[in-house]
Amino acid sequence: MPPLLIVAVLGLWAGPAWAQQPAANPPGKAAAPARNASPEIGPDRRVTFRLLAPKASEVLVSGEFMAASKALEKGADGLWSVTVGPVEPEIYYYNFTIDGVHTIDPGNPDVKTGSTSGTIQSVLEVRGDQPAFYDGQPVPHGEIRTHWYQSKSLGRLRRLTVYVPPGYDRDAAARLPVLYLFHGANADETAWTRLGHVNLILDNLLAAGKTRPFLVVMPFGYGVPPGTPGDNTAMFSRDLREDVIPYIDAQYRTLADRDHRAIVGLSMGGGQSLGIGLSHLELFSYVGGFSAALNGGDFAKTYAGLIADPAATNRQLHLLWVGCGTEDSLFPAAKKFTDFLTENKIKHTFRESSGAHTWMVWRRYLNEVAPLLF
Amino acid sequence: MPPLLIVAVLGLWAGPAWAQQPAANPPGKAAAPARNASPEIGPDRRVTFRLLAPKASEVLVSGEFMAASKALEKGADGLWSVTVGPVEPEIYYYNFTIDGVHTIDPGNPDVKTGSTSGTIQSVLEVRGDQPAFYDGQPVPHGEIRTHWYQSKSLGRLRRLTVYVPPGYDRDAAARLPVLYLFHGANADETAWTRLGHVNLILDNLLAAGKTRPFLVVMPFGYGVPPGTPGDNTAMFSRDLREDVIPYIDAQYRTLADRDHRAIVGLSMGGGQSLGIGLSHLELFSYVGGFSAALNGGDFAKTYAGLIADPAATNRQLHLLWVGCGTEDSLFPAAKKFTDFLTENKIKHTFRESSGAHTWMVWRRYLNEVAPLLF
Repeated sequence: MPPLLIVAVLGLWAGPAWAQQPAANPPGKAAAPARNASPEIGPDRRVTFRLLAPKASEVLVSGEFMAASKALEKGADGLWSVTVGPVEPEIYYYNFTIDGVHTIDPGNPDVKTGSTSGTIQSVLEVRGDQPAFYDGQPVPHGEIRTHWYQSKSLGRLRRLTVYVPPGYDRDAAARLPVLYLFHGANADETAWTRLGHVNLILDNLLAAGKTRPFLVVMPFGYGVPPGTPGDNTAMFSRDLREDVIPYIDAQYRTLADRDHRAIVGLSMGGGQSLGIGLSHLELFSYVGGFSAALNGGDFAKTYAGLIADPAATNRQLHLLWVGCGTEDSLFPAAKKFTDFLTENKIKHTFRESSGAHTWMVWRRYLNEVAPLLF
Repeated sequence: MPPLLIVAVLGLWAGPAWAQQPAANPPGKAAAPARNASPEIGPDRRVTFRLLAPKASEVLVSGEFMAASKALEKGADGLWSVTVGPVEPEIYYYNFTIDGVHTIDPGNPDVKTGSTSGTIQSVLEVRGDQPAFYDGQPVPHGEIRTHWYQSKSLGRLRRLTVYVPPGYDRDAAARLPVLYLFHGANADETAWTRLGHVNLILDNLLAAGKTRPFLVVMPFGYGVPPGTPGDNTAMFSRDLREDVIPYIDAQYRTLADRDHRAIVGLSMGGGQSLGIGLSHLELFSYVGGFSAALNGGDFAKTYAGLIADPAATNRQLHLLWVGCGTEDSLFPAAKKFTDFLTENKIKHTFRESSGAHTWMVWRRYLNEVAPLLF
């Protein structure tokens, strides 16, 4: 059986628990695919979606691997199906629309969840001939630790996740720098692990000697529930500065100073990382925004402190990195923001990449930015 | 606003990230519920399910909170709805069936995922006036650590999760006993945390002085992918004994002997914990099965070693605990197994409880059994 066909067959039972495991050496032979298996990935990387729905009158699939939605065709037995592709190796999200109801592919156990309704999607992972930079590989592995902490500023029990690089427990004297890394709207503190493969990307970079070990702290980005009134970023900023950072510096052996602290986020979290980071250079010296939500706002007013003395700012900032895909609707805002930085002589990197507002872009950005930190 | 109404309103945005947080002191006021909000929990604990589906001809809801599925009624605008209950405070799973397609409630972000298709369900959490034993409370909290380890016996990178009780990192001399805790069919190594609230249950028991601190190790229970040929329990048993236990004893400060090792599982994992545990008394002295899959099999043959010298077995076993709900289809098998133990003079506890094959039962069993360990 050629390797890709094995992957394809394995794809039938590839739930979340198997998703981050190497495709090599599958133990045992997979059972024959069910008649309504979905998605089924062929050896040519063409993907077949199926749904048994005798009563439905229209079934559509829409996903990041194609520009427009596509109709499934109804077979005589009520089994709808469509084949798309070939699809490039990547991790994609998609949805079914069944008689106008936007939902997941019920046949696929691998689901991307979020913290608000309407964000549930099915996952399509197409593997290539070689492991990707975000795949689990035979290298030393770090851990993901989930903490429950009492946020005094928010009056709530909250969760955060931490990537702990391999070897942390073995060297009781080592102190590590910390990257604070934020998710986007509708997501939660598990997103960077579950969707971003933060641990596998860093494990691989560390094994290749391309980055130094650091902790990654991923808090929950909503200070108030999504959709409720209240200054979410202000409340999140207080939680971060008054609760999360002190908690982390108490729980872990950190290098607890601005020179060893980075702040990066994506989308809503990018607006937060730039907004909080660039207003608190006493806390952070590496600042990044991935496809940041920078809509509107008077930059000159918001960042008055930053631009007041550009030379002083540039001495303090070890890195200011702004990336956005040219197909992203937030691209003009990113361009406007970096033009503002340029006009005000603030040193920075503007990474104009291909891509849209997707995790494909954010995984690649993390892989690019991690080696620039610390 | 009475407390329950706050809970109800919060229920509208209560995704996984909020689900384990106390309902008290919500920061800010929730936005008005969307017209198609689902599920909406009223102050009387009646629950309304909704779906906007103008083209559908039939929408059903089925869930653990009621005996039979119930039809939603179509409003003039294509908004289907039904109200059920009052529903007792608990965490339930449910599904929609839209024109014959069994799927989730697309309006509810809180989803129970599994490792095989057909296992995706929506989550309904109904809170009571007081916190439940499985709720996050203002007590010291342990951590959940996710490890990626290379299983030599399976030739694969695999994941496992570990509950680390509060204070473990502060007392560098303390060594802890270990409970190996297994999930059921179609689930994965995250199930006991995500659905079982293992960490919150143990945090609460520890705070009440009802149990002593121990580690809980939750491996992935499939040695071969679900549905593939191969002796799953035999491969899982090898992974456990040759890879997982040595890995844990190397990573953590454990009490690495049979007197400080327990093995417990539910359903498929209950079959595994009884099968492996009772065949390896050199490794384990506390053994439990929750609603264990014990279908068929010749007990006298499988457990020949166990019953050969009952007095010796009883000296070795600190606990043998078998629990099953009387509404569970596996109840007769559990009864047959415990009758077999009784006939052969093997000391054990048979817990006949109310309930079916649900996480409600398993959370309660964990809460009951944890104080009996070590």
